[in-house]
Amino acid sequence: MNTFKVGIVGYGNLGRGVEVGLKNTKDLELVGIFSRRDPKQLDTTSPAYHIDELDSFKDEIDVLLLCGGSQKDLPVQAPQLAENFNTVDTYDNHNEIPTHFEKLDKVAKENNTVAVLSTGWDPGLFSLNRLFAEAILPEGDTYTFWGPGLSQGHSDAVRRVEGVKQAVQYTMPQEKMVEDVKNKKKVDYNKLSAHKRVVYVVLEEQAEQDKVKEAIITMPDYFEGYETEVHFIDEDTFASEHTGMPHGGTVLRQGQTSDKQTSVYQFALDLDSNPEFTAAVAIAYARAAAKLAREKVFGAKTVFDIAPGYLSPKDPADLRRELL
Amino acid sequence: MNTFKVGIVGYGNLGRGVEVGLKNTKDLELVGIFSRRDPKQLDTTSPAYHIDELDSFKDEIDVLLLCGGSQKDLPVQAPQLAENFNTVDTYDNHNEIPTHFEKLDKVAKENNTVAVLSTGWDPGLFSLNRLFAEAILPEGDTYTFWGPGLSQGHSDAVRRVEGVKQAVQYTMPQEKMVEDVKNKKKVDYNKLSAHKRVVYVVLEEQAEQDKVKEAIITMPDYFEGYETEVHFIDEDTFASEHTGMPHGGTVLRQGQTSDKQTSVYQFALDLDSNPEFTAAVAIAYARAAAKLAREKVFGAKTVFDIAPGYLSPKDPADLRRELL
Repeated sequence: MNTFKVGIVGYGNLGRGVEVGLKNTKDLELVGIFSRRDPKQLDTTSPAYHIDELDSFKDEIDVLLLCGGSQKDLPVQAPQLAENFNTVDTYDNHNEIPTHFEKLDKVAKENNTVAVLSTGWDPGLFSLNRLFAEAILPEGDTYTFWGPGLSQGHSDAVRRVEGVKQAVQYTMPQEKMVEDVKNKKKVDYNKLSAHKRVVYVVLEEQAEQDKVKEAIITMPDYFEGYETEVHFIDEDTFASEHTGMPHGGTVLRQGQTSDKQTSVYQFALDLDSNPEFTAAVAIAYARAAAKLAREKVFGAKTVFDIAPGYLSPKDPADLRRELL
Repeated sequence: MNTFKVGIVGYGNLGRGVEVGLKNTKDLELVGIFSRRDPKQLDTTSPAYHIDELDSFKDEIDVLLLCGGSQKDLPVQAPQLAENFNTVDTYDNHNEIPTHFEKLDKVAKENNTVAVLSTGWDPGLFSLNRLFAEAILPEGDTYTFWGPGLSQGHSDAVRRVEGVKQAVQYTMPQEKMVEDVKNKKKVDYNKLSAHKRVVYVVLEEQAEQDKVKEAIITMPDYFEGYETEVHFIDEDTFASEHTGMPHGGTVLRQGQTSDKQTSVYQFALDLDSNPEFTAAVAIAYARAAAKLAREKVFGAKTVFDIAPGYLSPKDPADLRRELL
């Protein structure tokens, strides 16, 4: 088995997910965690360094897993780090992916590195399944349903409402519509009609339920237009039931192979921990990045550009024998 | 858009599936159907030729879709045709895939051709999902459930029972076990306990139901050890309800991303027409074979070796913008 050395850049939920995920891999060895914070203050037993020390590890690290945020960190950090390192990121700003790709591709080709972008599950595995489904069933429609899952952005928005002490928002697919797609029925899908939003709120003392509820369900961009449920709970219930980070979803395509013959293609994920699973996908693509770099296939790569066998630690003959 | 020219070798259910599937593709043009039978006797409006004429099409065909059987046709035909053509097959004898690969790889590399083997859905898409799921979730268990779907081999076996006029056999997954896996419960999976067999029989006049049923449910290798239901129906019901070729199934993996966090990875297909969907997968891989040949990436390839983007007629920038 090949072994590769990896580093983690950024130590939030995703970085911790990569750290724990690497315990499940025999072929990837963690060299260190690199953070903008004082490394002594990171709550970890892994080797930790300040990010300014990263360049001195250039010859010791095969791939860096970039665990910063898509809004501010990755657009700046990823192209810089791709000058000296092979990288994998989970950049998830769908509209900006083409720009991110172009920037990374230029840097990676100039510096003979591999930069894998937008791994994870959406973008990532969901994208892959949208591609497979459409390529195999050119006549048809693809539907993506997100959840049940915790939405960080919507939870943050609720927490900003006056009178809210703690809050969490779950995105739920409309199960009836999911079933209809699976059962080959026609559906009238749009993001709003296909999902509902379920909010759990712990109120500040003296806050008024009705006012808080109204402020939430009418919030433009976030809740307006969606079916929204608001549940008021106490702090103990919140602490015991709503501190996980579950997520998941389903990609479905109804396709006609001929006039009267329909196929339903389905891919679904049900994740107790969104950041740990996202990290697990990034880890598999880090392995792929290391193999591609060894083969001198430089440049930016997405999940569309990488043959699936590269994700596995097994060699091709074993894969054919065991999994084909 | 690139366009490629393709030929079909063999005109059974799969060959007809490829013919109808090509009507959904703008970039693949059918040059001809090649059969061992007299081409005038094929029930088709497409150009049809005797297989002996195939070599004269060497410069006119980018890829051949091999639609013969895995038992007798493909082991002989595929290596022969790979001398002069890029090929795609749906070879599905799992145990013999490594041998089939080695034979094809030798011929294809000697002759600068591309030979894609074992496409379809199992092997094929199910294999791909077993690989993705295991690579991403190294700690866990993968389960494959087949059906609901028509099994040709088991239907044939029932038809050989004395007193049976017509018969069809459906393989059904044990839904309770499928649900348990999805719900992150432990299951005691083996192929027998995970499936049941449902048989519909039209009796010959004067045949005895009890005797026929007993002969079916005790048949070694096919039914013995399985939960088997036998339903006796009349010929009209058979003709109206049991002449399709539906199939499908589910690949599931329960994986632990850390001690207490489980992910469930699910891929499922529900196919009105097994041969048409199998053909649709082979067509997408024919496109990939043509692109690989143009890039001079010669040799035998499985679904593990081919980057997903090759399956799509869209160019990489469009894929990133539209599907990532």
